[in-house]
Amino acid sequence: MDDRKGMLIVVSGFSGVGKGTVIQLLIDSLPHLQFSISCTTRKPRVGEENGVNYFFLSEEEFESKIAAGEFVEYTKTFTNYYGTLKSEIDKPLAHGVDVLLELNVVGARNIKEMYPDSVTIFITPPSIDVLKARLIGRGTESPESIARRLKEIEIESKEIEHYDYCVTNNIARSCADKIVNIIRSEHLKVSRQNVKKLFDAEA
Amino acid sequence: MDDRKGMLIVVSGFSGVGKGTVIQLLIDSLPHLQFSISCTTRKPRVGEENGVNYFFLSEEEFESKIAAGEFVEYTKTFTNYYGTLKSEIDKPLAHGVDVLLELNVVGARNIKEMYPDSVTIFITPPSIDVLKARLIGRGTESPESIARRLKEIEIESKEIEHYDYCVTNNIARSCADKIVNIIRSEHLKVSRQNVKKLFDAEA
Repeated sequence: MDDRKGMLIVVSGFSGVGKGTVIQLLIDSLPHLQFSISCTTRKPRVGEENGVNYFFLSEEEFESKIAAGEFVEYTKTFTNYYGTLKSEIDKPLAHGVDVLLELNVVGARNIKEMYPDSVTIFITPPSIDVLKARLIGRGTESPESIARRLKEIEIESKEIEHYDYCVTNNIARSCADKIVNIIRSEHLKVSRQNVKKLFDAEA
Repeated sequence: MDDRKGMLIVVSGFSGVGKGTVIQLLIDSLPHLQFSISCTTRKPRVGEENGVNYFFLSEEEFESKIAAGEFVEYTKTFTNYYGTLKSEIDKPLAHGVDVLLELNVVGARNIKEMYPDSVTIFITPPSIDVLKARLIGRGTESPESIARRLKEIEIESKEIEHYDYCVTNNIARSCADKIVNIIRSEHLKVSRQNVKKLFDAEA
Protein backbone atom coordinates (compact mmCIF):
# COMPACT_ATOMS: atom_id res chain seq x y z
CA MET A 1 0.00 0.00 0.00
CA ASP A 2 3.00 2.32 0.25
CA ASP A 3 2.72 3.30 -3.42
CA ARG A 4 -1.06 3.69 -3.26
CA LYS A 5 -2.17 6.59 -5.43
CA GLY A 6 -4.78 8.94 -4.09
CA MET A 7 -7.97 9.01 -6.11
CA LEU A 8 -10.26 11.94 -6.76
CA ILE A 9 -13.95 11.07 -6.36
CA VAL A 10 -16.68 13.45 -7.42
CA VAL A 11 -20.23 12.98 -6.19
CA SER A 12 -23.17 14.87 -7.67
CA GLY A 13 -26.92 14.50 -7.48
CA PHE A 14 -30.14 16.39 -7.71
CA SER A 15 -31.06 18.74 -4.89
CA GLY A 16 -33.09 16.77 -2.34
CA VAL A 17 -31.70 13.36 -3.34
CA GLY A 18 -30.04 12.85 0.05
CA LYS A 19 -26.38 13.36 -0.93
CA GLY A 20 -25.48 14.75 2.51
CA THR A 21 -26.47 11.59 4.38
CA VAL A 22 -24.76 9.34 1.84
CA ILE A 23 -21.55 11.38 1.97
CA GLN A 24 -21.50 11.27 5.78
CA LEU A 25 -21.82 7.45 5.65
CA LEU A 26 -18.98 7.31 3.10
CA ILE A 27 -16.69 9.37 5.32
CA ASP A 28 -17.51 7.11 8.29
CA SER A 29 -16.84 3.95 6.23
CA LEU A 30 -13.56 4.92 4.59
CA PRO A 31 -10.80 6.17 6.90
CA HIS A 32 -8.59 6.89 3.85
CA LEU A 33 -11.16 9.25 2.38
CA GLN A 34 -10.95 12.98 2.91
CA PHE A 35 -13.91 15.21 2.18
CA SER A 36 -12.76 18.31 0.36
CA ILE A 37 -14.62 21.34 1.60
CA SER A 38 -15.79 23.65 -1.18
CA CYS A 39 -16.06 27.41 -1.02
CA THR A 40 -19.32 29.21 -1.68
CA THR A 41 -20.79 32.66 -1.43
CA ARG A 42 -24.27 31.37 -0.66
CA LYS A 43 -25.65 31.78 2.85
CA PRO A 44 -25.35 28.82 5.26
CA ARG A 45 -28.58 26.81 5.67
CA VAL A 46 -29.80 25.83 9.12
CA GLY A 47 -27.32 23.39 10.67
CA GLU A 48 -24.51 24.15 8.21
CA GLU A 49 -21.16 25.20 9.64
CA ASN A 50 -18.26 27.15 8.18
CA GLY A 51 -15.29 24.83 7.61
CA VAL A 52 -17.47 21.72 7.90
CA ASN A 53 -20.02 21.84 5.09
CA TYR A 54 -18.46 24.71 3.16
CA PHE A 55 -16.11 27.58 3.56
CA PHE A 56 -18.67 30.38 3.47
CA LEU A 57 -17.06 33.40 1.86
CA SER A 58 -18.20 36.88 0.90
CA GLU A 59 -18.16 37.72 -2.79
CA GLU A 60 -15.09 39.91 -2.22
CA GLU A 61 -13.22 37.10 -0.45
CA PHE A 62 -14.14 34.65 -3.21
CA GLU A 63 -13.01 36.99 -5.96
CA SER A 64 -9.69 37.66 -4.28
CA LYS A 65 -9.04 33.89 -4.17
CA ILE A 66 -9.88 33.72 -7.88
CA ALA A 67 -7.38 36.49 -8.51
CA ALA A 68 -4.75 34.67 -6.42
CA GLY A 69 -5.26 31.46 -8.49
CA GLU A 70 -6.29 29.45 -5.45
CA PHE A 71 -9.09 27.52 -7.17
CA VAL A 72 -8.77 24.35 -9.24
CA GLU A 73 -12.17 25.19 -10.63
CA TYR A 74 -15.03 27.49 -9.82
CA THR A 75 -18.46 28.22 -11.24
CA LYS A 76 -20.90 31.05 -10.84
CA THR A 77 -24.60 30.24 -10.81
CA PHE A 78 -27.10 33.07 -11.30
CA THR A 79 -26.81 33.84 -7.59
CA ASN A 80 -23.61 32.43 -6.13
CA TYR A 81 -20.02 31.34 -6.59
CA TYR A 82 -18.90 27.75 -5.89
CA GLY A 83 -15.25 26.74 -6.00
CA THR A 84 -12.75 24.00 -5.19
CA LEU A 85 -9.47 25.04 -3.58
CA LYS A 86 -6.23 23.54 -4.96
CA SER A 87 -4.96 23.14 -1.40
CA GLU A 88 -7.89 20.84 -0.62
CA ILE A 89 -7.00 18.42 -3.43
CA ASP A 90 -3.41 18.24 -4.49
CA LYS A 91 -1.72 17.71 -1.14
CA PRO A 92 -3.87 14.76 0.05
CA LEU A 93 -3.71 13.11 -3.40
CA ALA A 94 0.08 13.32 -3.35
CA HIS A 95 0.04 11.57 0.03
CA GLY A 96 -2.09 8.68 -1.29
CA VAL A 97 -5.29 9.90 0.33
CA ASP A 98 -8.56 9.67 -1.61
CA VAL A 99 -10.35 12.98 -1.92
CA LEU A 100 -14.13 13.28 -2.13
CA LEU A 101 -15.73 16.32 -3.75
CA GLU A 102 -19.41 17.14 -3.81
CA LEU A 103 -19.98 19.19 -6.94
CA ASN A 104 -22.74 20.28 -9.25
CA VAL A 105 -22.71 19.06 -12.86
CA VAL A 106 -20.61 21.98 -14.10
CA GLY A 107 -18.01 21.54 -11.36
CA ALA A 108 -17.90 17.79 -12.03
CA ARG A 109 -17.27 18.37 -15.72
CA ASN A 110 -14.49 20.86 -14.93
CA ILE A 111 -12.77 18.41 -12.59
CA LYS A 112 -13.07 15.49 -15.05
CA GLU A 113 -11.36 17.60 -17.69
CA MET A 114 -8.49 18.50 -15.41
CA TYR A 115 -8.23 15.12 -13.67
CA PRO A 116 -9.24 12.52 -16.31
CA ASP A 117 -8.58 9.67 -13.87
CA SER A 118 -11.03 11.07 -11.33
CA VAL A 119 -14.11 8.94 -10.67
CA THR A 120 -17.45 10.70 -11.13
CA ILE A 121 -20.60 9.35 -9.51
CA PHE A 122 -24.14 10.66 -9.96
CA ILE A 123 -26.70 9.83 -7.27
CA THR A 124 -30.27 9.49 -8.53
CA PRO A 125 -33.56 9.04 -6.72
CA PRO A 126 -35.53 5.80 -7.30
CA SER A 127 -37.71 7.90 -9.61
CA ILE A 128 -37.92 11.52 -10.65
CA ASP A 129 -41.55 11.69 -9.56
CA VAL A 130 -40.56 10.72 -6.02
CA LEU A 131 -37.99 13.52 -5.97
CA LYS A 132 -40.46 16.11 -7.23
CA ALA A 133 -43.01 15.06 -4.65
CA ARG A 134 -40.34 15.32 -1.94
CA LEU A 135 -39.29 18.83 -3.03
CA ILE A 136 -42.87 20.07 -3.05
CA GLY A 137 -43.74 18.21 0.17
CA ARG A 138 -40.90 19.83 2.14
CA GLY A 139 -43.06 22.93 2.42
CA THR A 140 -39.96 25.02 3.15
CA GLU A 141 -39.57 26.56 -0.26
CA SER A 142 -41.45 29.15 -2.27
CA PRO A 143 -43.21 28.18 -5.52
CA GLU A 144 -40.48 30.12 -7.40
CA SER A 145 -37.75 28.17 -5.62
CA ILE A 146 -39.50 24.86 -6.41
CA ALA A 147 -39.91 25.84 -10.05
CA ARG A 148 -36.21 26.71 -10.20
CA ARG A 149 -35.20 23.38 -8.68
CA LEU A 150 -37.39 21.46 -11.13
CA LYS A 151 -35.71 23.32 -13.97
CA GLU A 152 -32.30 22.42 -12.49
CA ILE A 153 -33.31 18.74 -12.38
CA GLU A 154 -34.18 18.88 -16.06
CA ILE A 155 -30.82 20.43 -16.97
CA GLU A 156 -28.78 18.19 -14.69
CA SER A 157 -30.44 14.99 -15.86
CA LYS A 158 -28.98 15.55 -19.32
CA GLU A 159 -25.49 15.48 -17.78
CA ILE A 160 -25.73 12.03 -16.18
CA GLU A 161 -24.43 10.32 -19.30
CA HIS A 162 -21.07 12.07 -18.80
CA TYR A 163 -20.55 10.50 -15.38
CA ASP A 164 -18.69 7.24 -14.83
CA TYR A 165 -21.23 5.72 -12.44
CA CYS A 166 -24.87 6.21 -11.56
CA VAL A 167 -26.13 4.95 -8.20
CA THR A 168 -29.73 4.99 -7.00
CA ASN A 169 -30.32 6.30 -3.50
CA ASN A 170 -33.16 4.15 -2.27
CA ILE A 171 -31.74 3.47 1.19
CA ALA A 172 -28.82 5.72 2.15
CA ARG A 173 -26.79 2.90 3.75
CA SER A 174 -27.10 0.71 0.67
CA CYS A 175 -26.26 3.61 -1.65
CA ALA A 176 -23.15 4.42 0.42
CA ASP A 177 -22.09 0.74 0.40
CA LYS A 178 -22.30 0.71 -3.38
CA ILE A 179 -20.08 3.78 -3.60
CA VAL A 180 -17.61 2.24 -1.15
CA ASN A 181 -17.44 -0.79 -3.49
CA ILE A 182 -16.91 1.46 -6.50
CA ILE A 183 -14.00 3.20 -4.77
CA ARG A 184 -12.40 -0.11 -3.71
CA SER A 185 -12.85 -1.61 -7.18
CA GLU A 186 -11.39 1.45 -8.88
CA HIS A 187 -8.24 0.99 -6.79
CA LEU A 188 -7.90 -2.50 -8.29
CA LYS A 189 -7.71 -1.11 -11.83
CA VAL A 190 -4.42 -1.98 -13.47
CA SER A 191 -4.08 1.69 -14.46
CA ARG A 192 -4.09 2.69 -10.78
CA GLN A 193 -1.63 0.03 -9.59
CA ASN A 194 2.10 -0.38 -9.81
CA VAL A 195 1.84 -3.84 -11.38
CA LYS A 196 5.52 -3.90 -12.23
CA LYS A 197 6.31 -3.93 -8.51
CA LEU A 198 5.29 -7.59 -8.41
CA PHE A 199 8.31 -8.43 -10.53
CA ASP A 200 10.83 -6.01 -9.10
CA ALA A 201 12.58 -8.72 -7.11
CA GLU A 202 13.65 -10.43 -10.35
CA ALA A 203 15.26 -7.48 -12.03
CA MET B 1 -33.43 -5.12 -13.32
CA ASP B 2 -35.52 -6.11 -16.33
CA ASP B 3 -33.26 -4.23 -18.73
CA ARG B 4 -30.08 -5.49 -17.06
CA LYS B 5 -27.40 -6.17 -19.64
CA GLY B 6 -25.35 -9.33 -19.34
CA MET B 7 -21.66 -8.68 -18.83
CA LEU B 8 -18.73 -10.72 -20.05
CA ILE B 9 -16.05 -11.25 -17.41
CA VAL B 10 -12.68 -12.74 -18.25
CA VAL B 11 -10.43 -14.11 -15.52
CA SER B 12 -6.79 -15.02 -16.15
CA GLY B 13 -3.84 -15.77 -13.94
CA PHE B 14 -0.59 -17.62 -13.76
CA SER B 15 -0.66 -21.37 -13.50
CA GLY B 16 -0.69 -22.30 -9.82
CA VAL B 17 -2.16 -19.00 -8.63
CA GLY B 18 -5.34 -20.65 -7.37
CA LYS B 19 -7.81 -19.46 -10.05
CA GLY B 20 -9.94 -22.61 -9.70
CA THR B 21 -10.79 -22.01 -6.04
CA VAL B 22 -11.48 -18.31 -6.61
CA ILE B 23 -13.75 -19.06 -9.58
CA GLN B 24 -15.71 -21.63 -7.58
CA LEU B 25 -16.26 -19.05 -4.82
CA LEU B 26 -17.41 -16.51 -7.43
CA ILE B 27 -19.95 -18.93 -8.87
CA ASP B 28 -21.25 -19.69 -5.37
CA SER B 29 -21.52 -15.96 -4.55
CA LEU B 30 -23.24 -14.71 -7.70
CA PRO B 31 -26.40 -16.53 -8.77
CA HIS B 32 -26.57 -14.37 -11.92
CA LEU B 33 -23.14 -15.52 -13.04
CA GLN B 34 -22.71 -18.36 -15.49
CA PHE B 35 -19.35 -20.05 -15.94
CA SER B 36 -18.67 -20.61 -19.61
CA ILE B 37 -17.01 -23.95 -20.19
CA SER B 38 -14.11 -23.80 -22.63
CA CYS B 39 -13.08 -26.52 -25.05
CA THR B 40 -9.60 -28.00 -25.00
CA THR B 41 -7.68 -30.85 -26.53
CA ARG B 42 -5.46 -31.27 -23.50
CA LYS B 43 -5.96 -34.34 -21.31
CA PRO B 44 -8.09 -33.95 -18.17
CA ARG B 45 -6.09 -33.63 -14.95
CA VAL B 46 -7.00 -35.66 -11.89
CA GLY B 47 -10.40 -34.54 -10.63
CA GLU B 48 -11.36 -32.69 -13.81
CA GLU B 49 -14.61 -33.65 -15.49
CA ASN B 50 -15.86 -33.27 -19.04
CA GLY B 51 -18.61 -30.65 -19.21
CA VAL B 52 -17.66 -29.25 -15.79
CA ASN B 53 -14.11 -27.92 -16.03
CA TYR B 54 -13.77 -28.14 -19.80
CA PHE B 55 -15.27 -29.85 -22.79
CA PHE B 56 -12.42 -32.26 -23.51
CA LEU B 57 -12.26 -32.81 -27.26
CA SER B 58 -10.01 -34.74 -29.60
CA GLU B 59 -8.02 -32.73 -32.09
CA GLU B 60 -10.35 -33.89 -34.87
CA GLU B 61 -13.47 -32.82 -32.94
CA PHE B 62 -11.89 -29.45 -32.17
CA GLU B 63 -10.92 -28.82 -35.77
CA SER B 64 -14.37 -29.72 -37.05
CA LYS B 65 -15.86 -27.10 -34.68
CA ILE B 66 -13.36 -24.56 -36.03
CA ALA B 67 -14.50 -25.41 -39.55
CA ALA B 68 -18.16 -25.07 -38.52
CA GLY B 69 -17.47 -21.58 -37.08
CA GLU B 70 -18.59 -22.58 -33.60
CA PHE B 71 -15.84 -20.70 -31.74
CA VAL B 72 -15.84 -17.04 -30.75
CA GLU B 73 -12.09 -17.39 -30.36
CA TYR B 74 -9.58 -20.16 -30.11
CA THR B 75 -5.82 -20.42 -29.64
CA LYS B 76 -3.32 -23.15 -30.18
CA THR B 77 -0.43 -23.47 -27.77
CA PHE B 78 2.56 -25.61 -28.73
CA THR B 79 0.68 -28.68 -27.53
CA ASN B 80 -3.05 -28.00 -27.37
CA TYR B 81 -6.09 -26.14 -28.65
CA TYR B 82 -8.20 -23.97 -26.34
CA GLY B 83 -11.44 -22.37 -27.51
CA THR B 84 -14.59 -20.54 -26.43
CA LEU B 85 -17.89 -21.62 -27.98
CA LYS B 86 -20.26 -18.93 -29.26
CA SER B 87 -23.18 -20.87 -27.79
CA GLU B 88 -21.66 -20.52 -24.31
CA ILE B 89 -21.59 -16.71 -24.50
CA ASP B 90 -24.11 -15.02 -26.71
CA LYS B 91 -27.32 -16.61 -25.46
CA PRO B 92 -26.79 -15.95 -21.71
CA LEU B 93 -25.59 -12.38 -22.42
CA ALA B 94 -28.75 -11.70 -24.43
CA HIS B 95 -30.79 -12.90 -21.45
CA GLY B 96 -29.04 -10.49 -19.05
CA VAL B 97 -26.88 -13.18 -17.48
CA ASP B 98 -23.23 -12.42 -16.68
CA VAL B 99 -20.81 -14.86 -18.26
CA LEU B 100 -17.48 -15.77 -16.70
CA LEU B 101 -14.63 -17.04 -18.86
CA GLU B 102 -11.32 -18.40 -17.63
CA LEU B 103 -8.81 -17.71 -20.39
CA ASN B 104 -5.10 -17.45 -20.96
CA VAL B 105 -3.62 -14.10 -21.96
CA VAL B 106 -4.09 -14.71 -25.68
CA GLY B 107 -7.72 -15.74 -25.27
CA ALA B 108 -8.35 -12.72 -23.04
CA ARG B 109 -6.91 -10.38 -25.64
CA ASN B 110 -9.05 -11.99 -28.36
CA ILE B 111 -12.22 -11.57 -26.29
CA LYS B 112 -11.43 -7.95 -25.36
CA GLU B 113 -11.05 -7.12 -29.04
CA MET B 114 -14.38 -8.68 -29.94
CA TYR B 115 -16.25 -7.56 -26.82
CA PRO B 116 -14.71 -4.20 -25.85
CA ASP B 117 -17.14 -3.83 -22.94
CA SER B 118 -16.01 -7.11 -21.40
CA VAL B 119 -14.27 -6.84 -18.03
CA THR B 120 -10.84 -8.46 -17.84
CA ILE B 121 -9.31 -9.40 -14.50
CA PHE B 122 -5.84 -10.79 -13.87
CA ILE B 123 -5.22 -12.70 -10.65
CA THR B 124 -1.70 -12.41 -9.28
CA PRO B 125 0.07 -14.12 -6.40
CA PRO B 126 1.25 -11.98 -3.48
CA SER B 127 4.71 -12.27 -5.03
CA ILE B 128 6.26 -14.04 -8.00
CA ASP B 129 8.80 -15.73 -5.76
CA VAL B 130 6.00 -17.33 -3.73
CA LEU B 131 4.46 -18.67 -6.95
CA LYS B 132 7.76 -20.09 -8.18
CA ALA B 133 8.40 -21.77 -4.86
CA ARG B 134 4.89 -23.25 -4.98
CA LEU B 135 5.37 -24.61 -8.52
CA ILE B 136 8.67 -26.24 -7.63
CA GLY B 137 7.41 -27.45 -4.24
CA ARG B 138 4.44 -29.30 -5.76
CA GLY B 139 6.86 -32.04 -6.73
CA THR B 140 4.38 -33.30 -9.33
CA GLU B 141 6.10 -31.85 -12.36
CA SER B 142 9.26 -32.58 -14.28
CA PRO B 143 12.09 -30.02 -14.38
CA GLU B 144 11.18 -29.41 -18.06
CA SER B 145 7.56 -28.73 -17.14
CA ILE B 146 8.63 -26.36 -14.36
CA ALA B 147 10.99 -24.54 -16.72
CA ARG B 148 8.15 -24.19 -19.25
CA ARG B 149 5.79 -22.80 -16.62
CA LEU B 150 8.37 -20.27 -15.44
CA LYS B 151 8.80 -19.14 -19.05
CA GLU B 152 5.00 -18.81 -19.35
CA ILE B 153 4.93 -16.65 -16.22
CA GLU B 154 7.52 -14.34 -17.75
CA ILE B 155 5.53 -13.98 -20.99
CA GLU B 156 2.16 -13.62 -19.26
CA SER B 157 3.38 -11.01 -16.80
CA LYS B 158 4.00 -8.63 -19.69
CA GLU B 159 0.30 -8.85 -20.59
CA ILE B 160 -1.10 -7.72 -17.23
CA GLU B 161 -1.03 -4.07 -18.27
CA HIS B 162 -3.68 -4.83 -20.92
CA TYR B 163 -6.18 -6.06 -18.32
CA ASP B 164 -8.79 -3.82 -16.69
CA TYR B 165 -8.18 -5.05 -13.14
CA CYS B 166 -5.46 -6.83 -11.22
CA VAL B 167 -6.37 -8.64 -7.99
CA THR B 168 -3.94 -10.32 -5.62
CA ASN B 169 -4.88 -13.79 -4.45
CA ASN B 170 -3.63 -13.84 -0.90
CA ILE B 171 -6.68 -15.49 0.64
CA ALA B 172 -9.08 -17.02 -1.90
CA ARG B 173 -12.23 -15.77 -0.12
CA SER B 174 -10.95 -12.21 0.00
CA CYS B 175 -9.82 -12.35 -3.64
CA ALA B 176 -13.26 -13.63 -4.69
CA ASP B 177 -15.00 -10.90 -2.67
CA LYS B 178 -12.94 -8.26 -4.46
CA ILE B 179 -13.98 -9.68 -7.83
CA VAL B 180 -17.64 -9.78 -6.73
CA ASN B 181 -17.31 -6.07 -5.89
CA ILE B 182 -15.73 -5.35 -9.27
CA ILE B 183 -18.63 -7.07 -11.06
CA ARG B 184 -21.25 -5.21 -8.99
CA SER B 185 -19.51 -1.88 -9.48
CA GLU B 186 -19.18 -2.41 -13.23
CA HIS B 187 -22.96 -2.84 -13.40
CA LEU B 188 -23.30 0.65 -11.89
CA LYS B 189 -21.37 2.24 -14.76
CA VAL B 190 -23.50 4.74 -16.64
CA SER B 191 -22.46 3.03 -19.89
CA ARG B 192 -24.06 -0.23 -18.70
CA GLN B 193 -27.30 1.30 -17.45
CA ASN B 194 -30.41 2.60 -19.11
CA VAL B 195 -30.22 5.96 -17.36
CA LYS B 196 -32.91 7.47 -19.56
CA LYS B 197 -35.41 5.06 -18.04
CA LEU B 198 -35.44 7.21 -14.91
CA PHE B 199 -37.12 9.97 -16.89
CA ASP B 200 -39.41 7.93 -19.12
CA ALA B 201 -42.45 8.77 -17.04
CA GLU B 202 -42.17 12.43 -18.03
CA ALA B 203 -41.94 11.97 -21.76
